Amino acid sequence: MPFSPETVTVLAPATVANVVCGFDVLGFALAAPNDEMRLRLTEQPGVVIINDDDFDLPTEPTRNVAGAALLAMLRAVPEPLGVEVRIRKAIRPGSGIGSSAASAAGAVVGLNRLLHERFSKAELVEFAMCGEEVASGVRHADNIAPGIYGGVTLIRSTTPTPDVVPLDAPPLFVTVVHPQIEVKTSDARQILKRQVSLQDAIRQWGNVGGLVAGLLKHDYALIGRSLEDVIVEPVRSILIPGFREVKEGSRAAGALGGGISGSGPSLFMLSQDEATAQAVEAVMRETYQRLGLEHHIYLTSINPHGCQIVNNP
Amino acid sequence: MPFSPETVTVLAPATVANVVCGFDVLGFALAAPNDEMRLRLTEQPGVVIINDDDFDLPTEPTRNVAGAALLAMLRAVPEPLGVEVRIRKAIRPGSGIGSSAASAAGAVVGLNRLLHERFSKAELVEFAMCGEEVASGVRHADNIAPGIYGGVTLIRSTTPTPDVVPLDAPPLFVTVVHPQIEVKTSDARQILKRQVSLQDAIRQWGNVGGLVAGLLKHDYALIGRSLEDVIVEPVRSILIPGFREVKEGSRAAGALGGGISGSGPSLFMLSQDEATAQAVEAVMRETYQRLGLEHHIYLTSINPHGCQIVNNP
Repeated sequence: MPFSPETVTVLAPATVANVVCGFDVLGFALAAPNDEMRLRLTEQPGVVIINDDDFDLPTEPTRNVAGAALLAMLRAVPEPLGVEVRIRKAIRPGSGIGSSAASAAGAVVGLNRLLHERFSKAELVEFAMCGEEVASGVRHADNIAPGIYGGVTLIRSTTPTPDVVPLDAPPLFVTVVHPQIEVKTSDARQILKRQVSLQDAIRQWGNVGGLVAGLLKHDYALIGRSLEDVIVEPVRSILIPGFREVKEGSRAAGALGGGISGSGPSLFMLSQDEATAQAVEAVMRETYQRLGLEHHIYLTSINPHGCQIVNNP
Repeated sequence: MPFSPETVTVLAPATVANVVCGFDVLGFALAAPNDEMRLRLTEQPGVVIINDDDFDLPTEPTRNVAGAALLAMLRAVPEPLGVEVRIRKAIRPGSGIGSSAASAAGAVVGLNRLLHERFSKAELVEFAMCGEEVASGVRHADNIAPGIYGGVTLIRSTTPTPDVVPLDAPPLFVTVVHPQIEVKTSDARQILKRQVSLQDAIRQWGNVGGLVAGLLKHDYALIGRSLEDVIVEPVRSILIPGFREVKEGSRAAGALGGGISGSGPSLFMLSQDEATAQAVEAVMRETYQRLGLEHHIYLTSINPHGCQIVNNP
């Protein structure tokens, strides 16, 4: 691989994982917000991280999500290579909309372009999972996969390797609210019950089947009926003030449904049209104004592309 | 509704429920075997059952599966009506391929034709479930729904009413073996664990999502990867001699996968082509010949129609 002075610029989108009933298996990419990452090959082997924002994330490659993902990818390349990555994050760490996954996915998609698309998307997911592991201690792919494939993805299984199934969904508007409270992924994991009733599990996999079918059949009513989580939401929603008001108000305003994004604290709601998504935005704003909680709202849509190279070296 | 001397003849197919990972939510109809049912309206209100086979099933309508389904349907009709049904079963009771569901589904489809298609398929499912309840004590719809809709169906939920989602599957060959042992549905229910680990439940709903996507995307490889049941099969398969040999031998012969049909004792395997389905048949025959167990084998396909009226009154 020859040294190249070219720079690629990648937009790496926020993503929603744990999509209601699809805990650990369903995720989708958002059209906004996006991190911006610029990568170039260097003569000096190894990875250099430059943060171009105020989040004060680690720059040591093994402790940085993008760095760990790139190191995993470089180990799969026979020649000694160096890469420098400059990161300007727009997705707030800890928001629950895949901030770390965006860094990991954007890094490997960028380097792969510099390597003339040497690796498949499935391989990129595996490299990026090594980055996610730095952030959460868990090798999960439900933010990574939609970040790399775009759209809505099912991760059928992660063992032995991730089995990613892109689901061709109909147009959907997404309203996301990030209330400024802290929910640690590790706390959110710990609160889960390790055993669930068979009856609840059956109800959940009926809904997963319904949601997958609704997306593939472009059946909005079926999507709406399937957006029900009887296992994780009842436990985790108690960590998020305003959850119930947002959910009930959004459905009353016409949303198809929604729930906790990732392990929270962000909440998301899906709507069939933009006017409904705006009504949902109003519900979210009123709820958190009343609670006196600072919050950010994104009114966006599903991003069918995932990470995108915005220049063409 | 005027009295009519016309007779309808219905073919009511066998069905496979509890399709591997899709316990309680996925089922499909088989092209064979089929029960044959002849229905006609009578001047005398009520239901008359005539058995035209050697299975010695009850003829009292409240204790007969077809009878109970017809009585439920008649309660939804304002005028006093009578119906006589003559049943020639080909699907052996207790075989695990939806013998009782065929009687219930065939009965309501037949009467609905005599009533000029007054009721929707969704309503017919509800009437037929009243018949299933007589047979198993449980109002389940995963044999009824494919019997009425045909093809492969997802029953997303049965409460408050059955939410049936037809899944447009690619061509599939089905090899079914019915070893002549008795597995009571009630015993098969009792052996199930009431609690399952969250980890297993996640693996199962990943597979349900994968199977639904594989069917709708006509992706045979994905169907094959998703035919895995980590919850019910490990417990129930011990009730069925030869299970492991049949499953492993069938996969080695090229089958996509399969498992227990309903609550057993029948086993089924799905194949992409007929030659593989025949190789699976040989595996099944050898296994049960070696075990010295009487058995019936059906080499068939998925029936896209469900119950069919074969004359046209």
